[in-house]
Amino acid sequence: MTTSANKPRRGRPPKVTRENHDTKAELIRSGLEQLTECGFASSGIEPILKKVGVPKGSFYHYFASKEAFGESVIAHYDRYFSDKLDMHLLNTEYSPLKRLQNFVDDAVQGMTRHDFKRGCLVGNLGQEVDALPSGFRSQLTTIFMGWQQRIETCLIEAQASKEVAQNADCTQAAEFFWIGWEGAVSRAKLVQNAEPLRLFIQYFLHALPK
Amino acid sequence: MTTSANKPRRGRPPKVTRENHDTKAELIRSGLEQLTECGFASSGIEPILKKVGVPKGSFYHYFASKEAFGESVIAHYDRYFSDKLDMHLLNTEYSPLKRLQNFVDDAVQGMTRHDFKRGCLVGNLGQEVDALPSGFRSQLTTIFMGWQQRIETCLIEAQASKEVAQNADCTQAAEFFWIGWEGAVSRAKLVQNAEPLRLFIQYFLHALPK
Repeated sequence: MTTSANKPRRGRPPKVTRENHDTKAELIRSGLEQLTECGFASSGIEPILKKVGVPKGSFYHYFASKEAFGESVIAHYDRYFSDKLDMHLLNTEYSPLKRLQNFVDDAVQGMTRHDFKRGCLVGNLGQEVDALPSGFRSQLTTIFMGWQQRIETCLIEAQASKEVAQNADCTQAAEFFWIGWEGAVSRAKLVQNAEPLRLFIQYFLHALPK
Repeated sequence: MTTSANKPRRGRPPKVTRENHDTKAELIRSGLEQLTECGFASSGIEPILKKVGVPKGSFYHYFASKEAFGESVIAHYDRYFSDKLDMHLLNTEYSPLKRLQNFVDDAVQGMTRHDFKRGCLVGNLGQEVDALPSGFRSQLTTIFMGWQQRIETCLIEAQASKEVAQNADCTQAAEFFWIGWEGAVSRAKLVQNAEPLRLFIQYFLHALPK
């Protein structure tokens, strides 16, 4: 899309293509909302289509199957969430551990804004993975690896700036972060407040060898 | 049932009552399996009835609704799991922290035996709580409080035996335990191995003030 937009255009503007792109993006956005709140297995395509105003027949013009749609929604969420992580974890205005705390503060605000109804799509789907199309397992695992890598890099920078001891195993600590974080997000949804998120980061930072 | 079994019996044996009790127990067992693997929202009553061999009309003889059935299944799981916790955490043959490790070792064996398909029913349902009948939220929260209380008691005993520092906040640590544990169980299901459980308990024990 970006490339063709830079080319000189002849004849009628590519109206259909633009509309297609918008509709597809809207379906993904609507699916993200639905899947984050209700999971995949119990989410029908119908409410998503209804919200966007797309007839069922047209859905398959954009996605080969519900599975392909799910994969697109997951990939979209990964991009969104990885960008959020980078925004905080690469912000050198703050010390590495403060950046991690900033990410948590941001998540607290986000969950509060959505009344603790929306958690983490990847965590939710990980929970119901045995009922999902088999390709989802590796997609979700790979996404966790990407997020873990970002935390690991941040912890290695914390080592360099002496916030964390040289003998800390940053790979394991980063893995532990996501294991516990997903539990904290799930509990925050259950109790409808942010205390589990705050308690988790407090213990996580405390457990890091100083 | 226990009381009446001890009374002298006259006339025909109470066949129907015994069968009712067995069928109800079987429905709960079958429901436990189904709900632990697939959650509540996407679980129909039909596969559960089919497994036990009960017609749909009879289901409502045992349970007023799918919701009442769900509540019974959750209560059953709580009893089962609380007993398991007590078996380990009250076993004074071991030091308090070793008892905690024994519980984790038991969970590792249990998840491995079920090919990492079954996690924790309470954790699973907590994840999808917004799509569940509203009464489930307080039932699940109360159950977590009961489990947390057991871990807290164990940590207080660990303080008494100098395994944990006097200044440790055992209530918060016990809350942190369940937050992280549910995340670890969820991740173990995703990656289909027990490493997340082992990593979690290692960090949890490390984070306790000594």
